[in-house]
Amino acid sequence: MAKERLKVIPLGGLGEIGKNMTALEYGDDIMVVDAGLMFPEEEMLGVDLVIPDITYLLENQGKIRGIVITHGHEDHTGALPYILPRLKAPVYATPLTHGLISVKLKEQKALHGAKLNVFQSGSEIVLGKFRVNPYHVSHSIPDAVGLVIQTPVGVVVYSGDFKLDYTPVDGKPTDFAKLARLGAGGVLLLLSDSTYVEEPGYTPSERIVGESLDRIMGDAPGRVIVATFASLISRIQQVIDAAEKHGKRLFIVGRSMSDNVQMARELGYLRISPDMLGKIEELRRLPPDKVAIILTGTQGEPTSALVRMANRDHPHLRVLKGDTIVVSASPIPGNEAVISRTLDNLFREGAQVLYSRVATVHVHGHGSQEDLKMMMSLVKPRFFVPIHGEYRHLVLHTKLAQSLGIPASNTFVMEDGDVLEVSSKSAKVVGKVSSNSVYVDGLGVGDIGNVVLRDRRLLSRDGFLIVIIAIDKKLGSISGRPDILSRGFVDPSEADALYEECRRLVIKALDRGGERLAESSFVSSKVKDTLGKFVYEQTKRRPMILPVVMEV
Amino acid sequence: MAKERLKVIPLGGLGEIGKNMTALEYGDDIMVVDAGLMFPEEEMLGVDLVIPDITYLLENQGKIRGIVITHGHEDHTGALPYILPRLKAPVYATPLTHGLISVKLKEQKALHGAKLNVFQSGSEIVLGKFRVNPYHVSHSIPDAVGLVIQTPVGVVVYSGDFKLDYTPVDGKPTDFAKLARLGAGGVLLLLSDSTYVEEPGYTPSERIVGESLDRIMGDAPGRVIVATFASLISRIQQVIDAAEKHGKRLFIVGRSMSDNVQMARELGYLRISPDMLGKIEELRRLPPDKVAIILTGTQGEPTSALVRMANRDHPHLRVLKGDTIVVSASPIPGNEAVISRTLDNLFREGAQVLYSRVATVHVHGHGSQEDLKMMMSLVKPRFFVPIHGEYRHLVLHTKLAQSLGIPASNTFVMEDGDVLEVSSKSAKVVGKVSSNSVYVDGLGVGDIGNVVLRDRRLLSRDGFLIVIIAIDKKLGSISGRPDILSRGFVDPSEADALYEECRRLVIKALDRGGERLAESSFVSSKVKDTLGKFVYEQTKRRPMILPVVMEV
Repeated sequence: MAKERLKVIPLGGLGEIGKNMTALEYGDDIMVVDAGLMFPEEEMLGVDLVIPDITYLLENQGKIRGIVITHGHEDHTGALPYILPRLKAPVYATPLTHGLISVKLKEQKALHGAKLNVFQSGSEIVLGKFRVNPYHVSHSIPDAVGLVIQTPVGVVVYSGDFKLDYTPVDGKPTDFAKLARLGAGGVLLLLSDSTYVEEPGYTPSERIVGESLDRIMGDAPGRVIVATFASLISRIQQVIDAAEKHGKRLFIVGRSMSDNVQMARELGYLRISPDMLGKIEELRRLPPDKVAIILTGTQGEPTSALVRMANRDHPHLRVLKGDTIVVSASPIPGNEAVISRTLDNLFREGAQVLYSRVATVHVHGHGSQEDLKMMMSLVKPRFFVPIHGEYRHLVLHTKLAQSLGIPASNTFVMEDGDVLEVSSKSAKVVGKVSSNSVYVDGLGVGDIGNVVLRDRRLLSRDGFLIVIIAIDKKLGSISGRPDILSRGFVDPSEADALYEECRRLVIKALDRGGERLAESSFVSSKVKDTLGKFVYEQTKRRPMILPVVMEV
Repeated sequence: MAKERLKVIPLGGLGEIGKNMTALEYGDDIMVVDAGLMFPEEEMLGVDLVIPDITYLLENQGKIRGIVITHGHEDHTGALPYILPRLKAPVYATPLTHGLISVKLKEQKALHGAKLNVFQSGSEIVLGKFRVNPYHVSHSIPDAVGLVIQTPVGVVVYSGDFKLDYTPVDGKPTDFAKLARLGAGGVLLLLSDSTYVEEPGYTPSERIVGESLDRIMGDAPGRVIVATFASLISRIQQVIDAAEKHGKRLFIVGRSMSDNVQMARELGYLRISPDMLGKIEELRRLPPDKVAIILTGTQGEPTSALVRMANRDHPHLRVLKGDTIVVSASPIPGNEAVISRTLDNLFREGAQVLYSRVATVHVHGHGSQEDLKMMMSLVKPRFFVPIHGEYRHLVLHTKLAQSLGIPASNTFVMEDGDVLEVSSKSAKVVGKVSSNSVYVDGLGVGDIGNVVLRDRRLLSRDGFLIVIIAIDKKLGSISGRPDILSRGFVDPSEADALYEECRRLVIKALDRGGERLAESSFVSSKVKDTLGKFVYEQTKRRPMILPVVMEV
């Protein structure tokens, strides 16, 4: 019998921020860690979101023992509604994470048939040959875990998202003792979060945000409106605490915020006295300095309450003079422009706006360089694989590992789909499995390919120009004048002369002095060439040119 | 005779970063300060750049006495090639700025007929009733000035872009003495740069970048490749100095970089010994640690040398193992994603990459809060108008002014086109002139309107679906099967069944049981409704649906 080795296969989150997913395989057993989504980059036009490629998992459906989720953020859970209907696998999560996943699956009508299991940090989950021991970590959401995974070749530690907050909102810092004990016992492989490896020093504690919110609620002359992520349960708790201390009624606006607050209260992750919650009808009757509002929209999402307020487009909320608006989040890369516009509109409406560049109203949840070094020093792994990050973050994280004495040959900069084979003594990248980005657009999952995106890109730049040419079946020559239809190319009011010249050129190009025209592919390419050249000369633009040849 | 007042009219740069332009008008005289461009925001699809609206200036062509340019950056000069052919006005600039403008006008074939005049800081330019005294400021380009403008109602100070660098590369700090004298004499109005008003403290000196570059050139095991803006002449000088000190040959790559270096050398703004400049043919023969290269591409521009190197697409340059690549610039908002991709590709090619998040390789050229306070304290203006910035920057800058004792009623948050009327005692916004964004797309200047952009936006999201319907002239009913043509909507390989159903629905919708169809506008709207509803139900996408009705 051939000696089995452990295979570690990142399926998402390496070379990008988001859609985190990693598979571990030993013999006939595969376990999956996390199943996240990513918001599309600028050039993925019209795409709603991006999820990992699970082709390899579907090919090995029979081996899948379970999916363990480290925490409730969408970059670790958001692909579940799209993959669970196809990949039969039980899902394991802590109570709060389980609650957030249930809300999401229900929203997307994918709850039916899903097998969701709850575990507590400190327990053990057995998935075939893998014995998984989750340990508590501090992150910007409660009930987050890292994983200690006992495998037949040695111990693997998967860090999850973490920072070393000694004074977190939920009072539970990262379980260092467990990590240190592990380090003493020998860890074969560490997979660790690289998102903030560019940042020197330690990431500040959540506590400093609590202190800011307290000051803001105390000093504000009117209403205090706090925007944050609906999943940022610990931030929501800080807003509740500050509002309560300063005698304000709290209004929760928006469906995702309300759903999450309700779920987190039911599970005991949010402490809030029922009589401080206000109903939207009371809003007008209360004096402004007795009002605190919490809502979403920190990323400039067009349908969020904050953005609709900024655009005077919310059914119940307008910005009032004297409002203090706190944007308690930092921009996700790519959202800077829309966020900037939202801030400007709130200022224009007369609010005092506090955001991360000008006030301490947000800290992020990921370890900076010193946190990451602490992790490596406690765990002392033989092999190291940086996860969660752009390619440069992964490289910088291996350099950090090397600076702590891990030999360069034991660190691996991997990308999605790479297969790392690990024995107790050695590790090597041995191959690659399918790892495309899967685009979700409307109801379509994975049906948008590069052709569609390329066309959208071309159309977004210079629009299109369609020429409809009628060919007389009997004579084999052009009949009447070509029709021209165009959008996104030139202003309609200025187009007449240009189109007229286009028609003339098409007629001339297809004039064979009475002879029959060859087949329509000839007509098409002739028209494309002629018009492409002409409109570029005239406008220096390259609209998509589409000839339609009809026989009449 | 009615008492004349000074009118101050920002035509660009208020409410956005870029396309700076301000007009001052008194009686029959108008002077213009700066004429910049802005790079398009994400949703301005296909637009190459944006320039100020000069309708008001064209309407008052007879009054225009001149355009004074404060420094050579594109957000202050870049509109000149587009407006000079239409607006007859002499341009005034310092020698280096004049050189940069000439290079640019020549490139764009707009030099002919332009009247360019050179001035020195410390001189006086008389423009009708305006007497303009430029004073030297430190910025990230040499030969930058602010303007002291004597008007019949009082002194106006236009700050230009500036910071208070006590150790600038060119050895010439901002002329505080002049500003202090002015403050003592009484300044009516200060217009001051707001770009970095969110930043606390002082902006660091350029010197710290020089020290970094020196260390990098000294320590690098192989070639050192520095990317920066072609107009960042002082940064280029720092690269030259560091390369020379460490015995490296310098290679200048790319046309805009070469043109600017040559021009700046000729004018005496760059000191470089001729024998340290290398020719591209020598590049292979030199040992790597004797090579320094300077090029452009810090913003991820697709045709720049840095990006082509990163993509293995440069005719002469490949990244070599051991290369140290310095990206000496910070991202212009909106460019983050492409820059991130460029950095990742350079890492992937094996280079050590130093950029502003991980090394001190760039400082910007704008004053932070303390610099801005210093300016206001020296000038002590009666009235204050923040310029250059998003709306929130303007608001924050007036708050800063108020914190220094300028009454709120004497500070004005203006937007492009607002007209501020100023006498020696009072100031008030009295009206608005035309201030649209003028889009440049290919050869078209201002011919792209909101209709075209809206269409590009729709097309970029879900593409289009065109239905070509032949109507039999005699029978007045549909003839044959409709043709369907679509791009950017669904993957062609998956579209057949969908299109077939679309055809069936169109035929059904237009079936009048033998009766004649009404006019084609009825056919169009019927087809649009039917298909719009159907494809949304099937795909949750909304392609642009365009029916083409042909009579045959």
